[in-house]
Amino acid sequence: MDQVTHAIQDYYPEDFAHCFGCGRMNEQGHQFRTGWDGDKTVTIYSPKEKHKAIPGFVYGGLIASLVDCHGTGSAALVKHRDNGLEPEDAEDAPRFVTGSLAVKYLKPTPQGVPLRAVGTHEKTEGKKITIKVDVYAEDALVVTGEVTAVEMPDTFKK
Amino acid sequence: MDQVTHAIQDYYPEDFAHCFGCGRMNEQGHQFRTGWDGDKTVTIYSPKEKHKAIPGFVYGGLIASLVDCHGTGSAALVKHRDNGLEPEDAEDAPRFVTGSLAVKYLKPTPQGVPLRAVGTHEKTEGKKITIKVDVYAEDALVVTGEVTAVEMPDTFKK
Repeated sequence: MDQVTHAIQDYYPEDFAHCFGCGRMNEQGHQFRTGWDGDKTVTIYSPKEKHKAIPGFVYGGLIASLVDCHGTGSAALVKHRDNGLEPEDAEDAPRFVTGSLAVKYLKPTPQGVPLRAVGTHEKTEGKKITIKVDVYAEDALVVTGEVTAVEMPDTFKK
Repeated sequence: MDQVTHAIQDYYPEDFAHCFGCGRMNEQGHQFRTGWDGDKTVTIYSPKEKHKAIPGFVYGGLIASLVDCHGTGSAALVKHRDNGLEPEDAEDAPRFVTGSLAVKYLKPTPQGVPLRAVGTHEKTEGKKITIKVDVYAEDALVVTGEVTAVEMPDTFKK
């Protein structure tokens, strides 16, 4: 799998599709796209040259952003599937926000290769969904993380 | 304190001053600047309009980046002070990388106001320094976090 064809972010309602990380309508943002690969979720992103920590290595904050949006996108995929829907059904998708984010940097992440965030659904508790995230640079596991995402509260919608 | 006058990032060696988050030489980056305020550390940043989660609220990944670089900058300040130095001494500063990052989002962060990350030195263990981070939007505590930073390993320097 080299690219995500059916991304959940393609079906976020328009008002909620402006996220700097994953909003399809934010032309200055990263436009991360997250889809299913069997029972795992995947986001693939190639950091730009400017996204460096020091020359040759990717900035950790960019990877944290990837983990963050991969987590909320994965939670939306899980909820959508629980509702009997897949992205290719082209129905409006649920929208999650990040409750907490944890990122562990295992080794320096090289620039110049695509990063692949792979998500595993760990648990659902009410409106909270927890996703374990592994980030690979080619075959090397470089970062692990966990995101607890929460279905968007009304405080965001007013 | 409305701005940081003596920032540790002003004294990172030139080869290590290209970070997208806090490198003074990365013109496309955020150029976060971190200094002392008594025994606390402070980074002040005004997110740009594009850095939104949904319109009106700041993107969590940007705040994670702020926490990340505030953590490594704070660790460098702590180590520098342990060495008997302050940023205003204009000596080369030590350089830390992120080992792990945890971020908890307490409430939606409004756009249009400066964010203030405040750091507290929790512990030093060998080459690891842990910083607790609180992020305020005006007077409201919006995010808490913790960064364990590690003095830059040789794997980054080759």
